[in-house]
Amino acid sequence: MSSPTALALRAHLDGRWRPRREAARALAADPRFQVRLAGRSVDEQRTIVLDQLHLLADLGFTRAGFPAAQGGEDDLGGFVAGFEMLAMGDLSLLVKVGVQFGLFGGAILNLGTAPHHERYLADVMAARLLGCFAMTEHGRGSDVASLRTTATFSPRTGEFVIRTPDDDASKDYIGNAGCHGRLAVVFAQLLTAGQERGVHAFLVPIRDAGGGLCDGVRIRDDGVKGGLDGVDNGRIWFDDVRIPRENLLNRFGDVAADGSYSTPIESPSRRFFTMLGTLVQGRVSVAGAAVSATEVALTIAVRYGERRTQFTAPDGSPIAVLDYLTHQRRLLPALARTYAMHFAQGQLLERLVDTPFDDDEGRRQIEAHAAGLKATATWHALHTVQACREACGGAGYMAENRLTRMRADVDVFTTFEGDNTVLLELLAKELLTGFRDHLGDLDALGTARFVADQAAEAIAEKVGAWRWLQRLRDVTPSPSEDGSIADHDWQLMMFAWRARHVLESLARRLRRAADTDDPREQFAIFNAAQDHLLAAARAHMDELLLEAFVNGIDAMADGPPRDLLIRVSDLFAISTLEAERGWFAEHGRLTAARSKQLVAAVNELCAELRPHARTLVDAFGVPAAALDVPLLAPVVAPTP
Amino acid sequence: MSSPTALALRAHLDGRWRPRREAARALAADPRFQVRLAGRSVDEQRTIVLDQLHLLADLGFTRAGFPAAQGGEDDLGGFVAGFEMLAMGDLSLLVKVGVQFGLFGGAILNLGTAPHHERYLADVMAARLLGCFAMTEHGRGSDVASLRTTATFSPRTGEFVIRTPDDDASKDYIGNAGCHGRLAVVFAQLLTAGQERGVHAFLVPIRDAGGGLCDGVRIRDDGVKGGLDGVDNGRIWFDDVRIPRENLLNRFGDVAADGSYSTPIESPSRRFFTMLGTLVQGRVSVAGAAVSATEVALTIAVRYGERRTQFTAPDGSPIAVLDYLTHQRRLLPALARTYAMHFAQGQLLERLVDTPFDDDEGRRQIEAHAAGLKATATWHALHTVQACREACGGAGYMAENRLTRMRADVDVFTTFEGDNTVLLELLAKELLTGFRDHLGDLDALGTARFVADQAAEAIAEKVGAWRWLQRLRDVTPSPSEDGSIADHDWQLMMFAWRARHVLESLARRLRRAADTDDPREQFAIFNAAQDHLLAAARAHMDELLLEAFVNGIDAMADGPPRDLLIRVSDLFAISTLEAERGWFAEHGRLTAARSKQLVAAVNELCAELRPHARTLVDAFGVPAAALDVPLLAPVVAPTP
Repeated sequence: MSSPTALALRAHLDGRWRPRREAARALAADPRFQVRLAGRSVDEQRTIVLDQLHLLADLGFTRAGFPAAQGGEDDLGGFVAGFEMLAMGDLSLLVKVGVQFGLFGGAILNLGTAPHHERYLADVMAARLLGCFAMTEHGRGSDVASLRTTATFSPRTGEFVIRTPDDDASKDYIGNAGCHGRLAVVFAQLLTAGQERGVHAFLVPIRDAGGGLCDGVRIRDDGVKGGLDGVDNGRIWFDDVRIPRENLLNRFGDVAADGSYSTPIESPSRRFFTMLGTLVQGRVSVAGAAVSATEVALTIAVRYGERRTQFTAPDGSPIAVLDYLTHQRRLLPALARTYAMHFAQGQLLERLVDTPFDDDEGRRQIEAHAAGLKATATWHALHTVQACREACGGAGYMAENRLTRMRADVDVFTTFEGDNTVLLELLAKELLTGFRDHLGDLDALGTARFVADQAAEAIAEKVGAWRWLQRLRDVTPSPSEDGSIADHDWQLMMFAWRARHVLESLARRLRRAADTDDPREQFAIFNAAQDHLLAAARAHMDELLLEAFVNGIDAMADGPPRDLLIRVSDLFAISTLEAERGWFAEHGRLTAARSKQLVAAVNELCAELRPHARTLVDAFGVPAAALDVPLLAPVVAPTP
Repeated sequence: MSSPTALALRAHLDGRWRPRREAARALAADPRFQVRLAGRSVDEQRTIVLDQLHLLADLGFTRAGFPAAQGGEDDLGGFVAGFEMLAMGDLSLLVKVGVQFGLFGGAILNLGTAPHHERYLADVMAARLLGCFAMTEHGRGSDVASLRTTATFSPRTGEFVIRTPDDDASKDYIGNAGCHGRLAVVFAQLLTAGQERGVHAFLVPIRDAGGGLCDGVRIRDDGVKGGLDGVDNGRIWFDDVRIPRENLLNRFGDVAADGSYSTPIESPSRRFFTMLGTLVQGRVSVAGAAVSATEVALTIAVRYGERRTQFTAPDGSPIAVLDYLTHQRRLLPALARTYAMHFAQGQLLERLVDTPFDDDEGRRQIEAHAAGLKATATWHALHTVQACREACGGAGYMAENRLTRMRADVDVFTTFEGDNTVLLELLAKELLTGFRDHLGDLDALGTARFVADQAAEAIAEKVGAWRWLQRLRDVTPSPSEDGSIADHDWQLMMFAWRARHVLESLARRLRRAADTDDPREQFAIFNAAQDHLLAAARAHMDELLLEAFVNGIDAMADGPPRDLLIRVSDLFAISTLEAERGWFAEHGRLTAARSKQLVAAVNELCAELRPHARTLVDAFGVPAAALDVPLLAPVVAPTP
């Protein structure tokens, strides 16, 4: 039974899409979603997950993100919220849902036009037509603009010819390709009327209704992976596959019957990134799923940490492992950071839904933050699930207790939907320039050249690191006015100062690329600053997380739950400063004495929050079915 | 084809047991050891691994660690070296070998006496008799001294009665228990003549020759785990199982026919830890295996990083991902640290073999270092294998490329053979006191009380952090005399100073426990210093790693390989100082300017070592069979 504080926090964490989340919790109670996959063959896992996918569609869970005109609900926020809740169960179903409705369906919705919507979306959302999102090629993961599959238009036949020039250009790691997909959204270089028009998306049938491969399509099952074995990934080759002209998803570029090309966006690079931008919901969804998985792992580990005892106290009573400082240190700062991420994710989702497509500046910010949050949240999930596994010892290693499978599944979240390192670079470049158009090709050299043209000072002004600082002061009253580390003003100032300083010094450093005309030297300057670029992105994300946390506190009514949240935000802020104290010291922002105080303060906050740990994880509202693991069973274990 | 430098380094890294390692490399070429387990059912995996185990025994690979009198080779070092090489293949076979020959066989060898050796060891090393090491109980992982299984002697029948009092005291996660084990070494509280005599080990048959369970033995298969699914772990209950008196492994404590007890070690706690101490080879072996697995992962990732390209350079040529600074940062400092660990492991193994059992001081140091190295090396393996997986992107997530399975298998290395956190505490306590006897029960309170009796100064003298500093100065000539960060004297001084300072301040802090008589307050003081305890252990291990690295350089002839090693040691030293620069700054040992120089120096060393990365991984001598993965295949990939 959750405490009143836990229930109040849960309602607050659930946020705007609370009804969707409650509905998803009810759904999780359905035994058909509780089939455990660990230890089953890959084939069995895929079959079970496919059945669950159909069940979700039958229950109408998959309609939210699609237009009402095709039987959807025009509620992208509701879809993502439901997706996040799904991530509390087995992640193979989550990813299968993401592939089918988010990537495949989302590409038809966002890159296609009305005829595509009318022809396909009803079948897509009902899971009558399963499909693939075939972007990544074997030889190019991050460099999607350079992919080498071609789509050549022939006015004579009125068809595109889709060709995989060599093995290196085969589409790889494609979900739904291994077994179940019948139609693929294929990203290829468009060639028409003798001209290259850059990457466009095409609908290419890969299997017939009976499951047989279409002519010219070769597929190799990717087989066993590091996790997510309920998802059938595969590798696809296209040997001059012919598709009709209308199979081009033509929202951002079209080919007429005579082969002439037209587009609403002239710059090829800008067009490409506009296309990718419409797919940003994928990154937002992955970030949210990572947060949910983290919450499940922390709930398991904290509850186990309260019941598991080792050694005895002076009075002879057994000591719960969560009473040990080292155990608290493993779990509680991660828990505090998870709260920050939960708020950041909720706020990003609201902005995604509320920002019109034609608000270029707003959409660009959302893309940058989605990139940053996806990278940050998936790495946080990876590390936290592992910390939870270790905190549960041998029991944590048993597959029946879910943690190892979650860890294995969430691993690739750091790679798909954009490699985390590349995403952080993307964010940093956006911070540096604010102008995607100039950096469109993600090319290191281009960035160096562009940045070299900018004045560091002008860039810094755009960052606006301080814009929210004054308001924060009103939101979280400082417990003291003496400038101690518990002083919220001081914490906030430190976050903002770091974000701004790292960015400013980066901009100054890259400006040196302007002093040379040698492209190789420019590249060398850029490459040598790559760790600085990542540091800028990380500092920005930390600031964004704190801002989101404070916004979350701000939106909550006074009372004990809010007071508890404030202390959790303190742990997030101070443990982050502790982790970065080397940087602060070398930038003259932290005295030796205060640096040591940070370490002590984290320890003290751990002790203070220890009694509230159960409340804080209960507030995540993880469905009981997701916690139905032997290590949390009421009795220690059944006798065989 | 490896370069001459790589070959010279390999010979040096192979060290004293080079012939064993070369033999193991030859063995790895046998196709029967190359069956890939990923994607197979648990039953299949277990069967394959069992067959491989028998094959190893038939080939004589498993005899090295046993006495010549029973057909062994009296070569523990050779056994461990072979075990380390085995860790370059699938880790299920490694762990099955560890359970059978290291834990089960090792317990009979080290805790038993001549009659046990004569009766069992020949069958054990031939794998005709498979067995278990049943120490861990479901409810007690780290607190082994408190385990609750009992062995009660009845003079009337001349038998011990082995009893599992409740589910919580069942033996859990026991390797070979799920299917194949017939005999178990069971750790239980000995009760005889109405007295408790503490934990002793007993040989308890659990299955008959036909594989049926013995009377009173219940076993539940642990089923699917987070990895190592080729090993059959299980949970065992003993319902008043009767075993003859001679089944007590009686080297350190014996029961006569009349039930009277005798022992060569009066203190129960000291007796227990002496028993455990004879089993230290297990921790040494796990540490070595972790280093080997890390080497395999780095070899795969570095070689892939050289061939995998993304984006293009100014001249239009594709850029190898290993040419990116961020990629170098992910892999090369980890590679440098792996070298340090390899040397530390080799030197620890030599000391293990060369230190007589009656050298109490020497054996105690070995135990402490084995604990520290096991913890450090297994965490390093976990993080590095994961970094390698991420560095290989989507390809890294395919099971066929080995990294995800290695990562999943190596995960539990941080838990078994002693939870890493507990092991680091063990090391720190040893550093604090030097007297295992007084701390024998691993109990926090006892430690606090004992430490309180010590003077911090006296303790510090025992540490001897500076003992090797002068010699080091002669071994690694400083490239400069100006006190720059490339100055080896300065690097060494920083490592030594940190190790000593953390330990001294910890001792002072714990002394405060003497100011109170309230046990609860004493416990609170100790618990509040737990992170300090871990910091002391980590600082000590870093120092030990650098010392080992310098010893490794010292033992190598002048020339290019040695010069390269020195630069690798610089990267290890400086990247470690970089990671700890917050601590150094807050202790007044690092100016802001020099702190920033550390960051820059790591970047520069990465660039400098980048061209040697392939040489440095080739030097590990990973067998070709272990690198037979599609992502390193000569052609990009086969067409299906």
